[in-house]
Amino acid sequence: MITSPSNPLVKELVRLRSRRHRDTEARFVVEGRRPLALAAAAGVTFEQQVICTDLGGEPVVDAPTVEMSEVAFRKASYRQNPEGVLAIARHLDTSLTKVSLPETPLVLVAESIEKPGNVGAMLRTADAGGVDAVVLTGEGTDIHNPNVVRASQGALFTVAVGTAAVEELTAWLSENGIRLLAAVPDGGSAPWQVDLTGPVALAIGAEDEGLSPALLDAAAGRITIPMLGRVDSLNASTAAAVLVYEAVRQRDSEPD
Amino acid sequence: MITSPSNPLVKELVRLRSRRHRDTEARFVVEGRRPLALAAAAGVTFEQQVICTDLGGEPVVDAPTVEMSEVAFRKASYRQNPEGVLAIARHLDTSLTKVSLPETPLVLVAESIEKPGNVGAMLRTADAGGVDAVVLTGEGTDIHNPNVVRASQGALFTVAVGTAAVEELTAWLSENGIRLLAAVPDGGSAPWQVDLTGPVALAIGAEDEGLSPALLDAAAGRITIPMLGRVDSLNASTAAAVLVYEAVRQRDSEPD
Repeated sequence: MITSPSNPLVKELVRLRSRRHRDTEARFVVEGRRPLALAAAAGVTFEQQVICTDLGGEPVVDAPTVEMSEVAFRKASYRQNPEGVLAIARHLDTSLTKVSLPETPLVLVAESIEKPGNVGAMLRTADAGGVDAVVLTGEGTDIHNPNVVRASQGALFTVAVGTAAVEELTAWLSENGIRLLAAVPDGGSAPWQVDLTGPVALAIGAEDEGLSPALLDAAAGRITIPMLGRVDSLNASTAAAVLVYEAVRQRDSEPD
Repeated sequence: MITSPSNPLVKELVRLRSRRHRDTEARFVVEGRRPLALAAAAGVTFEQQVICTDLGGEPVVDAPTVEMSEVAFRKASYRQNPEGVLAIARHLDTSLTKVSLPETPLVLVAESIEKPGNVGAMLRTADAGGVDAVVLTGEGTDIHNPNVVRASQGALFTVAVGTAAVEELTAWLSENGIRLLAAVPDGGSAPWQVDLTGPVALAIGAEDEGLSPALLDAAAGRITIPMLGRVDSLNASTAAAVLVYEAVRQRDSEPD
């Protein structure tokens, strides 16, 4: 039973909030019953589980488990209302070669999305919309960021996630016969004027910067979500939701 | 020139972050060039403008203006990267009688959405999708919350916003011949199987609680966004985006 907030494991859990430390250790933290259960179902490797029975926690994954006092657990936890269970996992393998695709894949490409909360929200939308793979490219968030893990509510483990440089991504898309469609702020076709029933990848950039010239050049088509108001930009995760669900709509109307 | 962070105006700006104080004073803070310009264009009444030239600020709205030092402004500001201009505005009038509707209105109803960031995101989506009015009902956020103002990026001023109890809302909808459609987690029709080209109100509840029995009873139909994954719920503002843009799609295909 770990009772002290200055225990080395507590300190290690706090240090794993830093990207540099995560990258060095190749480990990250998953917290909460449902995300842990989804991660375990996805075959994620856990090295250490921590529970706090005073917070109602009990073991969820198969890993060496220690108990912490409420004070120590709250210090280690990244949540305001912790459920009393978290675990240290090995980094996910996000190489594109690990991603297996169905016959008519729907892929979401997120380029240089800085805010981890947006990446998490995009993963959640990808899960809901049955997206076959989410590929992160460009600068920005790493998927093991605690805010990505939290905001995705476990979708990080239910959706195939890849990370790749733009050249590798575009090569992978053509090898797999997937049309790349770029979301652009203006000049593209409305989402419902583009056929999304075939193998497609929907690429979304950051609100301010948009997509890189390299991705735009590689795209077979451009999509613009009509903006009928005056504020002028949609949040990247909102744009992803509109495009993904337009694909769901079109595919739902297709004969099987 | 106000230089001290303990100046009464700085203190008042900080106090206006509290709902109780806002409600007592019937005043709130709008910050940033674009939101202020949109608010001014919408006829919002400003009582006091504050600029910080060291942060690049200059007057945006027509109101008595004082200058602050950077230290004082940063204390008063709600932003991490302030643009050097903010102003105190009188509370918006959100009575439904103030909302004027076009012939075939598209209304978004948000019930008991707790997170101000979600309310702000819904306003931004409503602006983008050409929603004619957003009505907030039930418990939850007040629209003058600084996080609503910030997350809406000014959409709080470009979209007609009403607040009303459920009974008042449903009476207003029937008076205006608007069909209420309730978003529910399951058992409803897919959004694209429901005709959204007429006068409709799309009602969305909180992720965990959903819509109240009173709103569900008043609804003429139920819509369920298909969930093809395993995480099981969409963020309320994501759900709003999917539904609003399905209405935009259907209306775009209509002859004028």
